[in-house]
Amino acid sequence: MKALSDIGLVGLAVMGENLVLNMESKGFTVSVFNRSTEKVDKFLANRGKDKNIRGAHNLEEFVASLERPRKIMLMIKAGPAVDATIESILPYLEKGDVLIDGGNTHFPDTNRRTKYLQEKGILYIGTGVSGGEEGALLGPSIMPGGSKEAWPLVKPIFQSIAAKVEDGSPCCDWVGEDGAGHFVKMVHNGIEYGDMQLITEAYQIMKDLLGMSADEMHEVFKEWNTGDLDSYLIEITRDILAFKDEDGEPLVDKILDTAGQKGTGKWTGVAALDLGIPLTLIGEAVFSRCLSAVKEERVEASKILSGPTPTFTGDKKQLIDDLRDALFASKIVSYAQGYALMREAAKEYNWDLNYGGIALMWRGGCIIRSAFLGKIKEAFDANNSLANLLLDPYFKDKVEKAQAGWRRVAAAALTNGIPAPAMTTALNYFDGYRCDRLPANLLQAQRDYFGAHTYERIDKPRGEFFHTNWTGRGGDTASTTYNV
Amino acid sequence: MKALSDIGLVGLAVMGENLVLNMESKGFTVSVFNRSTEKVDKFLANRGKDKNIRGAHNLEEFVASLERPRKIMLMIKAGPAVDATIESILPYLEKGDVLIDGGNTHFPDTNRRTKYLQEKGILYIGTGVSGGEEGALLGPSIMPGGSKEAWPLVKPIFQSIAAKVEDGSPCCDWVGEDGAGHFVKMVHNGIEYGDMQLITEAYQIMKDLLGMSADEMHEVFKEWNTGDLDSYLIEITRDILAFKDEDGEPLVDKILDTAGQKGTGKWTGVAALDLGIPLTLIGEAVFSRCLSAVKEERVEASKILSGPTPTFTGDKKQLIDDLRDALFASKIVSYAQGYALMREAAKEYNWDLNYGGIALMWRGGCIIRSAFLGKIKEAFDANNSLANLLLDPYFKDKVEKAQAGWRRVAAAALTNGIPAPAMTTALNYFDGYRCDRLPANLLQAQRDYFGAHTYERIDKPRGEFFHTNWTGRGGDTASTTYNV
Repeated sequence: MKALSDIGLVGLAVMGENLVLNMESKGFTVSVFNRSTEKVDKFLANRGKDKNIRGAHNLEEFVASLERPRKIMLMIKAGPAVDATIESILPYLEKGDVLIDGGNTHFPDTNRRTKYLQEKGILYIGTGVSGGEEGALLGPSIMPGGSKEAWPLVKPIFQSIAAKVEDGSPCCDWVGEDGAGHFVKMVHNGIEYGDMQLITEAYQIMKDLLGMSADEMHEVFKEWNTGDLDSYLIEITRDILAFKDEDGEPLVDKILDTAGQKGTGKWTGVAALDLGIPLTLIGEAVFSRCLSAVKEERVEASKILSGPTPTFTGDKKQLIDDLRDALFASKIVSYAQGYALMREAAKEYNWDLNYGGIALMWRGGCIIRSAFLGKIKEAFDANNSLANLLLDPYFKDKVEKAQAGWRRVAAAALTNGIPAPAMTTALNYFDGYRCDRLPANLLQAQRDYFGAHTYERIDKPRGEFFHTNWTGRGGDTASTTYNV
Repeated sequence: MKALSDIGLVGLAVMGENLVLNMESKGFTVSVFNRSTEKVDKFLANRGKDKNIRGAHNLEEFVASLERPRKIMLMIKAGPAVDATIESILPYLEKGDVLIDGGNTHFPDTNRRTKYLQEKGILYIGTGVSGGEEGALLGPSIMPGGSKEAWPLVKPIFQSIAAKVEDGSPCCDWVGEDGAGHFVKMVHNGIEYGDMQLITEAYQIMKDLLGMSADEMHEVFKEWNTGDLDSYLIEITRDILAFKDEDGEPLVDKILDTAGQKGTGKWTGVAALDLGIPLTLIGEAVFSRCLSAVKEERVEASKILSGPTPTFTGDKKQLIDDLRDALFASKIVSYAQGYALMREAAKEYNWDLNYGGIALMWRGGCIIRSAFLGKIKEAFDANNSLANLLLDPYFKDKVEKAQAGWRRVAAAALTNGIPAPAMTTALNYFDGYRCDRLPANLLQAQRDYFGAHTYERIDKPRGEFFHTNWTGRGGDTASTTYNV
């Protein structure tokens, strides 16, 4: 083992442990520390045994074991614990050392911390790390942002442990300043919420409308994984559907249908509302998790509220193909919305984002990795200022080919009383985005009627505002303070 | 004119002016102040002429003109201007005086200001005021919260100027502590976004699928306003559709289809995400406004992306009835979601909200006033702890009767490429809420697969968590720090 470690990592939960093992396997010597120091001992006695991994029982010893400039990665719970840990490490650091937050931190915190530490001469990186337990061990997607001077110092380690795509490119590159890395990771997680929601909707329609078993659905997902939908989440869904419980029955059927929602999915929705970007699919995915959480209330409601009995009399094979098309087209919409959000954030925060590069980072290693992201990379490589992914020729063609099946699925779900909120909101977005004339003219008339909010006209230049005294009563004073 | 005024009002934009005229018409003497003092003179020379209205040109004079304990209402732009105005008035106030913010303030600001002013011995009220220009003049809905000791002091004025329902009850009562008044007003505005969105969707389907003219739609809204949908927004839509431009053509057709979204609609969505309540319809309404805003991008997209040509061959009269049912059922869902949000906020912030009372406040005066709110009042008067409005016998019955038409409308819209995001998300929510078994079991399996997030089982008690090593690789370390 080298006299001084290449990098130090604080926080030995599953992600931290696996990142350490990954780094070590690539030839790096790693110091580890954990607030509950028994975890350090346990790790070194088990998974970390006989490896170039150095345990420390206090921060002074930990920092002293690192080569300068020190690179310290925190894999701890996002929030106040990060600030507290930064404060407790700071006394041992020297100018030019690099602190890295690899947790699921909300990007405004990273904006703030980058500024705070740069003022103290410490370089700061907030990085998204995706891939879950296994990705962390075998090659995650890594999305770093923050102090750009720190990038050359950590690049060899990060790109070495990151996932690689077919041509060997690492799924890790510099994202941008301040909290850009965590912002992009947040959008990644929001998209992950959406992808998962779409899969569960396809699953529910197969199960409740077509009456398919887990084994039958396993076959469908297996086939889907060989085409446009080829992706990690489809692959694990295929495997989950085949996984049997101890009694030989599908395990998935035994799992309670309540999912947590907190953190990144919600943040993505809030960011979209703040930036005024219609991120409808991820929004529905987050809200669906909320609805799943009130299990007991739903059980009660199911006894009180009636709906149609799902009945399908058409061509089952056709509807399964339609479902595939609906899932794929909806997924395209979700990514189009997510990219629109990143584009708006880049404008708002003055980040110079490389959209093709982001697709490459997501192409491998992370939970949303897919063949599809290669196509997104191509789209943005061809035109980094593409206004909307739906306008790229490849995706336009795919969506248009998928739309007949997509519409049949949406109609079948709504007619039969099976919820498909993500698939239908995606279709509504597609149809709204294609509208040169939305009905917001009526809405503007209403707002002017009751609140004197004024409106623009189609036969006048933009920026000229009109107010009509619709009732003949009231005054001509336009509203300036009362905004609905 | 009395020697001292009963109340003072700061901020002479349209809402402020009209509230002053309303108060004066009820026998109160009102002092007015505006930062740009020429507005004071203009108001007194015109609409405020020869009335018991006293103008002031500086704050000292303004405060000195008020009877003790002073009651000062701010009708100014929400945000820093409120803090600045409070600071500039404070030096002239005495303990026990009442400051009232009647603007569209975000409730956390009112929470903060109530605490701040109470510490200085000043009573504070943050109140929602709804009804727009005309409501402010003739009787708005008023939703006050904050320092409860202030309520008896302003009650006579507020209940006197508020709208009245048929039996004479004022649409104004005490809502709750801190920012409860502004929270309820925020939800009101979110619901208003939803109601308006639903009307525009019905309008677009009539226009683009049934090819109806503004005059024909005017007749439909006129009829709808006599039934379950009887409400202010349906009424003004009826009138808007009949309103002709100078050239004799419907004015609505000339209005640009871009609507603003900022402030309260967005806040309602953020509050729902924060509190974990599926507020899908208002969410879609806010996002629809965002989509309407990118007019030029939509015009471009409409040339590139193709969809079906809307064609309707069925019974037109039937579809119009279906639309009415879809609108009504969706509206019930929207209010169910909004009330669920208030219920969760009451739990979170320790407010004792009277849900029937809130319906009464909204029953008249405000933008969402409707016959329907009388039914909501009845539902919550019968059971203030009703978990969801959909479970009330009256609304359950109405939704179940409406659902066949609702489903036909949703299918027709999605099949024909006409966006109806609010109506369809409402239907999806209804169907999801009725599900004793949602597909979140698959989602939990996925989360446990890639992130060791654990799951509960349907055959084990709640609170017992299981982790499966799905791949046979990886460890048994459960995730504690990596929350997707």
